[in-house]
Amino acid sequence: MARALRLAERGLYTTQPNPRVGCVIAHGEEVVGEGWHERAGEPHAEVYALRDAGERARGATAYVTLEPCGLHGRTPPCADALIAAGVARVVMASEDTSQAVGAGLQRLRDAGIVVEAGLMRDAARELNIGFFHRIERGRPFVRVKLAMSLDGRTALADGTSKWITGEAARHDVQRWRARSSAILTGSGTALADDPRLTVRLDDVPHVPPLRVVLDRALRTPRGANLLDGSAPTLVLHGPLATPDQRFDAVECAEVPETDTGLDLDVVLGMLAGRGVNELHVEAGPTLCGALFAAGLADELLLYVAPVLLGDRARPLMALPPLDDMARRWQLAVLDRRVLGEDLRLRLRPKS
Amino acid sequence: MARALRLAERGLYTTQPNPRVGCVIAHGEEVVGEGWHERAGEPHAEVYALRDAGERARGATAYVTLEPCGLHGRTPPCADALIAAGVARVVMASEDTSQAVGAGLQRLRDAGIVVEAGLMRDAARELNIGFFHRIERGRPFVRVKLAMSLDGRTALADGTSKWITGEAARHDVQRWRARSSAILTGSGTALADDPRLTVRLDDVPHVPPLRVVLDRALRTPRGANLLDGSAPTLVLHGPLATPDQRFDAVECAEVPETDTGLDLDVVLGMLAGRGVNELHVEAGPTLCGALFAAGLADELLLYVAPVLLGDRARPLMALPPLDDMARRWQLAVLDRRVLGEDLRLRLRPKS
Repeated sequence: MARALRLAERGLYTTQPNPRVGCVIAHGEEVVGEGWHERAGEPHAEVYALRDAGERARGATAYVTLEPCGLHGRTPPCADALIAAGVARVVMASEDTSQAVGAGLQRLRDAGIVVEAGLMRDAARELNIGFFHRIERGRPFVRVKLAMSLDGRTALADGTSKWITGEAARHDVQRWRARSSAILTGSGTALADDPRLTVRLDDVPHVPPLRVVLDRALRTPRGANLLDGSAPTLVLHGPLATPDQRFDAVECAEVPETDTGLDLDVVLGMLAGRGVNELHVEAGPTLCGALFAAGLADELLLYVAPVLLGDRARPLMALPPLDDMARRWQLAVLDRRVLGEDLRLRLRPKS
Repeated sequence: MARALRLAERGLYTTQPNPRVGCVIAHGEEVVGEGWHERAGEPHAEVYALRDAGERARGATAYVTLEPCGLHGRTPPCADALIAAGVARVVMASEDTSQAVGAGLQRLRDAGIVVEAGLMRDAARELNIGFFHRIERGRPFVRVKLAMSLDGRTALADGTSKWITGEAARHDVQRWRARSSAILTGSGTALADDPRLTVRLDDVPHVPPLRVVLDRALRTPRGANLLDGSAPTLVLHGPLATPDQRFDAVECAEVPETDTGLDLDVVLGMLAGRGVNELHVEAGPTLCGALFAAGLADELLLYVAPVLLGDRARPLMALPPLDDMARRWQLAVLDRRVLGEDLRLRLRPKS
């Protein structure tokens, strides 16, 4: 299964909106077939692994990181392919909650195949955390990326943020962008930084993430990189704004407002409806703070540079004031990594 | 020499204002004597090592982490002791810049002893960084301790700072306090937190550090822990303030003022004059920022807890505003350590 998970990871940048899935077919210790899902619309991991195994699939065990599909989708059900190939046993890591409960599992069992579930389930769910999040909660897994100084500042008072972190950290960000289905920012960042929010990784094939701009009053200026049409782009605005020709090269959609801005629940629901699994956020303190305070930020990807910017510089996140230390927002550290001179922390809110 | 440095470290909490020094006497690979300096007024490392070696010191090599003293101080010169014991060779890690250049070295050479200098010099100087700093620059080595949230906040808006970091981090702080000659704070912290700034380490013998309070206008209130006389305490005030009976249990001294508060150069010079090697600072954003901005903070000891306090909470340090990212304060990371859920970073300003 560990091998199947490594195979699944090969689809990290390309399977969206589908999950990343790997499959290994083996007789005891001997591997006879391997496969992984590479791209939506193309065959699933099981099909590649069965092709690789050929006749040797008969009587074998198939290790698959996700429950095989039991229903016709864009491709015929993998459960049927495993049955037809004469596989004797299927070991799956995680259930596929996107299909009727046990649809694949039951189809296999009905055909007399021994099915076991749950081996390395946590790792398998982690690999597709966005997919499961979207299916089970109706919104993407939201990963908020922030680059800051030691004193928690993301930009100078005038908004200058280029560059706080070093080359290695900035390159690392590209991989997190690449694995995401969409990249979210706000109009404040569009105005201050004029970011492109594209993936700049020459050697890594990937599906270009959808760029999503929250721009309530449509303030993004003519000629902004985000409006250049170089990548799929969605600009979300409030009911009082009407897109003009600045937005000709991108898609626009209206979203209801709340007291504090565009309705973030609606935004995330809309993105889930478009198949966004992992949503990568690169935005200013207001939007990041709003997501976090609303419990909608599922992960912080925090790059810390060994520099100080001082108390006049921009804060990490705008959050409601606290009057009690017991109410501080607590996070769990997933991992720590040194990147050049910088430090990367991945954190998730404690529930 | 590595062994001699480990011996020297045994004096980490007790030798001040003297340096930490270790000595190993050996014939080739065979160690025949060991010693370290434990406490000011007691014998030096070489004396203990020679006693340990006895007659076997004759013809041996003495490895000593600091140049042996060549002049009479509180104890007779160690150079003479080495000569009298018949040591053939002395290898020393670092020169002793507190005595006339080469005073010890020359005395040994004049007696026909082979002397080598510089083996593990960097490590030896690091172990006594405060001692060398005081001798060579006329001020203590200033280590600023700060405990902060991920977003660089040291307290809530109302000043509450108990507790941002966890037990392991707070225990670690006690060791840094213990190795310091003095602990510096400001009246703002005295008012907000009423700290004791004593060393709470039951199992570690140490010299109680001098508590130093910068209190320009003598605002520290009656009954404050810092005024309780439970540890040596020095309150430094401006020319316009006069100590009253609140300060009966402590020592007070006047310091000139600058535009921004008490003259920090004078403060540090005064502390150096009292033999303060390492000065541990636990203060608020104003004093820490003033030290840092003036180039007087030699090291940051930064504890980072995986929590967020929000942008209304207190900043790490008050620093002059920056208008250019190129002028950001850059630091080098000495080490990173995980303490419970918290992270400890030690950093020094890049020169």
